Amino acid sequence: MKPIVDATHDPARRSWVESANAADSDFPIQNLPFGRFRAAGDGGWRIGVAIGDQVLDLRQAGCVDHADMARLLQQPAAERLALRRAISDGLTSGSPQQAAWRAALRPMADVQLGLPCDIGDYTDFYVGIHHATAVGKLFRPDNPLLPNYKWVPIGYHGRASTIRPSGHGFVRPMGQLKGPDDAAPLLAPTQRLDLELEVGIVVGRPNAMGESIPIAEAEDHVFGLTLFNDWSARDVQAWEYQPLGPFLAKNFASTISPWIVTLEALAPFRKPFARGAGEPEPLPYLDSADNRAHGAFDVGLEVWLQTAAMRAAGHAGERIASSNFADAAYWTVAQLVAHHTVGGCALNSGDLFGSGTLSGPQRDQAGSMLELSEGGKRPITLHNGEQRTFLLDGDRITLRGHCARDGLRRIGFGDCSATVLPAP
Amino acid sequence: MKPIVDATHDPARRSWVESANAADSDFPIQNLPFGRFRAAGDGGWRIGVAIGDQVLDLRQAGCVDHADMARLLQQPAAERLALRRAISDGLTSGSPQQAAWRAALRPMADVQLGLPCDIGDYTDFYVGIHHATAVGKLFRPDNPLLPNYKWVPIGYHGRASTIRPSGHGFVRPMGQLKGPDDAAPLLAPTQRLDLELEVGIVVGRPNAMGESIPIAEAEDHVFGLTLFNDWSARDVQAWEYQPLGPFLAKNFASTISPWIVTLEALAPFRKPFARGAGEPEPLPYLDSADNRAHGAFDVGLEVWLQTAAMRAAGHAGERIASSNFADAAYWTVAQLVAHHTVGGCALNSGDLFGSGTLSGPQRDQAGSMLELSEGGKRPITLHNGEQRTFLLDGDRITLRGHCARDGLRRIGFGDCSATVLPAP
Repeated sequence: MKPIVDATHDPARRSWVESANAADSDFPIQNLPFGRFRAAGDGGWRIGVAIGDQVLDLRQAGCVDHADMARLLQQPAAERLALRRAISDGLTSGSPQQAAWRAALRPMADVQLGLPCDIGDYTDFYVGIHHATAVGKLFRPDNPLLPNYKWVPIGYHGRASTIRPSGHGFVRPMGQLKGPDDAAPLLAPTQRLDLELEVGIVVGRPNAMGESIPIAEAEDHVFGLTLFNDWSARDVQAWEYQPLGPFLAKNFASTISPWIVTLEALAPFRKPFARGAGEPEPLPYLDSADNRAHGAFDVGLEVWLQTAAMRAAGHAGERIASSNFADAAYWTVAQLVAHHTVGGCALNSGDLFGSGTLSGPQRDQAGSMLELSEGGKRPITLHNGEQRTFLLDGDRITLRGHCARDGLRRIGFGDCSATVLPAP
Repeated sequence: MKPIVDATHDPARRSWVESANAADSDFPIQNLPFGRFRAAGDGGWRIGVAIGDQVLDLRQAGCVDHADMARLLQQPAAERLALRRAISDGLTSGSPQQAAWRAALRPMADVQLGLPCDIGDYTDFYVGIHHATAVGKLFRPDNPLLPNYKWVPIGYHGRASTIRPSGHGFVRPMGQLKGPDDAAPLLAPTQRLDLELEVGIVVGRPNAMGESIPIAEAEDHVFGLTLFNDWSARDVQAWEYQPLGPFLAKNFASTISPWIVTLEALAPFRKPFARGAGEPEPLPYLDSADNRAHGAFDVGLEVWLQTAAMRAAGHAGERIASSNFADAAYWTVAQLVAHHTVGGCALNSGDLFGSGTLSGPQRDQAGSMLELSEGGKRPITLHNGEQRTFLLDGDRITLRGHCARDGLRRIGFGDCSATVLPAP
């Protein structure tokens, strides 16, 4: 199905929430991402929509009659679209709801933003072919890209219990470290703490166990996208990962941005999916006309680093890398859904996929310190003279994402940010 | 802390539930495992304890005032022990509760047994050193046991959404298959469907993210053990598993036995944990006096196969392998908990660990068809003349487990059983 571009994307549409009309707002009326929030004294989490620097309480505004994000995620496409249109109309300048809905706004700065949904199972993919090649070269110089990479959307199961929303710091993890010349490993804080620039994919409608999702229906099961940082301890990973994959190197913390940017909002920012010359065609279950025509998402991505010294100096940090989801990914979201379920695996509403690290081919497009520093061999130098190979205590990493096209209102994902705390 | 053996383990103790006193019952009064059940017309799941061929409804019996297994799992050790003693006393012949509790019994044959708890995250370990060596030999003939194996309790994250309780059949999964001489993979039903004989470990008390669990406290966070069959598609696995580990080869289905045999019930069946001569000592965070003295669990394990032909002939099936948790495992349950959390990973009540395949060193002790058939090269011959390398449609695999020692009442785990259904 072709993504629907309609009046909700009209760049001329303005909101009576004035902050949403600022050119640099991630959350203009054309976006309307969903998340969960609570204020001091609130009982549980409520469902909100980001609009400018405000959160609209969807229940108080009468748009939903519950606070269960999983129910929202399960909606069929037509209901999702109707809800988007109702929210957009109500927030449009001059709407009849303005007076009533103003009371349902909360300043975003005054509320706590939670996980956007309860995450059941979390899967991390590996769709960034430049990342896979660069990292493969470090772990296996003679064999960087394994023969399955161009046939199988490589993925593995991750740990859901340690995913936290933006703003939650995490402790530098301990783990077994062993250099190639050490006789035995020792337990110590990781010395090679890394970030991973990823897009998060939130499952909407579930499928039954034993029933695969054909690629033509795959996007019906996706609610939207977030930013996602899959923190990694590279020294722990190198020692533990064979033969069954990363474990403690990845399960100590992951950070997700609190707002799910819906597939409806992303409709005008789709791109064709195409393989370069000489690349194998996807197997039939990973191929469709729709996927070829508009399977990719044109999302600009950035990594910002603020060191403790920058923070002390009042400096907001500097951008250390930028890339693009569509350019970096060898597989599309629809292909990931089709592949994940082809053997009958059940997806539940709120399940999360990480895309894998989304690096471009250039060094300043690398979505991890492992790549930026060439495996720790070439430190990067920051504007204040500090250097980094891997992350130090006090470093704050912020991922940012946005979609921008001529003739369209730019939309953003909001910050996906966390600070490294010292090991205990 | 030394496991507590008390009057609840007294082999002379008998129950007024007569079926519990049969010598071959898995569920004598000395066991008292917890699970969830519902009858036709019931609303949700209820918490029950297995006693002989009956289920005691714990809420109706007044032992708990809720139906939330996660709350039960979170109990501190002292409360767990008190609850066990109260249930044991009430079910003992001549108890004052007999009349009231009889009304709270349901014949096990008349109720549906569910997952014993909601499973948040599921981790599969790889503690079976004979399995790791035998399988390693098939995948990497020159390098069967990787250098990390004797230092790191190898594990990886698995898929929680497709774990089903005993009795649920599952569909033979499709997946990408590629022989070494094929130019390209193809999508087809797996031709190398396998079982894995594992013990399941159910997390009781949670830990906070960022806080590790010292090995001395590890068993405080374990509620009990189950049987667990981690069905595997070996051809899919061989093609997809590098570099990030098994994915679709494992996530289509796993089967868990419906009763959690508690650590309290298992107290008399503990064994010392010891490494053979020449084996490295565990790192300090994986070592404790308690772990050395009684870290292992003496659980006898069996794999039974009933083919469709056997079923048609009214034959209950035959045992194709047997082993023992303590003998097969290179790491203990306490070591797994300490390792899983050493980097700060949060465990939640109801999280599940699979032990990994528990094979002994002999061929008839192999916990997978991959080992029993030497990678498919040597079929096993069944009593009726049928042969198997891997599993065929209609095959039903049943795992059984029990603890038995001189002077003690034998306790069992109940069946962990599922039938292979044809691919769609």
